[in-house]
Amino acid sequence: MKKIGVVGGVGWPSTIEYYRLLCEASQRYHEDKEVSGPTPMPEITIESLDQNFTIVHRGSEALDSWKAWDEYFSAAIQNLKMCGAELILIASATPHTRLEEISRGVDIPLVSMYDSVGSYCKSVGIKSLLVLGTMPTMVSPAFKQSMESFGISAFYPKTERLKTDVVNVIERLYQNKTKGTAVEIEAIVRSCVSSTEIENTAVCLGCTELPLAFEGLNKKQSFDFGGISYINSSVVHALSAFEACIG
Amino acid sequence: MKKIGVVGGVGWPSTIEYYRLLCEASQRYHEDKEVSGPTPMPEITIESLDQNFTIVHRGSEALDSWKAWDEYFSAAIQNLKMCGAELILIASATPHTRLEEISRGVDIPLVSMYDSVGSYCKSVGIKSLLVLGTMPTMVSPAFKQSMESFGISAFYPKTERLKTDVVNVIERLYQNKTKGTAVEIEAIVRSCVSSTEIENTAVCLGCTELPLAFEGLNKKQSFDFGGISYINSSVVHALSAFEACIG
Repeated sequence: MKKIGVVGGVGWPSTIEYYRLLCEASQRYHEDKEVSGPTPMPEITIESLDQNFTIVHRGSEALDSWKAWDEYFSAAIQNLKMCGAELILIASATPHTRLEEISRGVDIPLVSMYDSVGSYCKSVGIKSLLVLGTMPTMVSPAFKQSMESFGISAFYPKTERLKTDVVNVIERLYQNKTKGTAVEIEAIVRSCVSSTEIENTAVCLGCTELPLAFEGLNKKQSFDFGGISYINSSVVHALSAFEACIG
Repeated sequence: MKKIGVVGGVGWPSTIEYYRLLCEASQRYHEDKEVSGPTPMPEITIESLDQNFTIVHRGSEALDSWKAWDEYFSAAIQNLKMCGAELILIASATPHTRLEEISRGVDIPLVSMYDSVGSYCKSVGIKSLLVLGTMPTMVSPAFKQSMESFGISAFYPKTERLKTDVVNVIERLYQNKTKGTAVEIEAIVRSCVSSTEIENTAVCLGCTELPLAFEGLNKKQSFDFGGISYINSSVVHALSAFEACIG
């Protein structure tokens, strides 16, 4: 198995989720293999950043305003490389909006969440994708553009109000207040997608908190709830990284 | 806050527990402080090893038989140092039996679980300590010897049979089979400590699994159950590492 490098800490509960998904994937992978001793696990280096720094140093539209932020993530990736990581993944959706900038000059494969989701959607025949996530994810064209190369038409909630509704749900889920959130997400989705289109559209839960709204369903790559198909981007991303790890 | 380096993966659930404890400690520490943005977190590098390698390459009493094992852990510590870690902790009790060998030449502080437990026991006036843990922990003199410098008399279950009973409980807890384990641990303790001595003796749960037997009590450094005082070594260890991180 290849050594995996994980950029984590943004936030730390997501990092736990990714690490657990990788280790459980290795357990399943080795289930029917004869092994002496405990289940082999990929070696994993996690560089857990200080989320406060990443928020305080978030840039704006001004040229060079992302410099400190980009350098912080680039340095983390360099550390992972120094530790022998043979593939990199970032255990959070939001930093993917600046994947190009922070992975410049990185000469080991970086498993992008966008590519993982795109490739998964393509494999199951999804052509239209509503992406819900944090505000940076929903205002950046990055996720949408990445989906195009997979022949998938991705879109975000159209109004400021709907985007804020998504962010408010995420905020509460982060505090572990799950009550009623699945129904609220459903309402947001139905405001974004007409009832005739809903059958041909999947909803990407594009941040680690959103799946927490769907207790008992959130361990899978995708699931149906209230007549809507959801994709759990963290699970899809982590499993695709494990595939790369054994591939 | 100093950057923390964690040697993890042995096993991976312990690593999650330590990482969570460190992050929650930072949350509590910053609770009454004015901070702009999300709670500051210490930067943490985790070098997660392959537990299979560590078990397969476990040495014996033969000279040099621990060479590969020692090198594996030493290399992990060197990686953490390269990433800028300013203090090291090993997120597992068992490797502490060879702390001297694997930390040779390490010029950054290593927060030993033994020292953390010793210092905690001293601060709360514990003078006699029954240590339960994995077989390597209970056959090595290392834990016992470390306690001496804190004026604590530590001892393990005396018979092979009682040690095996402890290991069997750990085995089931690792598989999340908690039912009845608290009572079984109590029975083991009462076989090791007479009813007149039990009041002056604490029991160190010296591996990450054992506290799982005591649902609802296992988040604290110490707790009482069935008239016995228990010490959760992982919590004591992680909190003492966080103290070093802010100190």
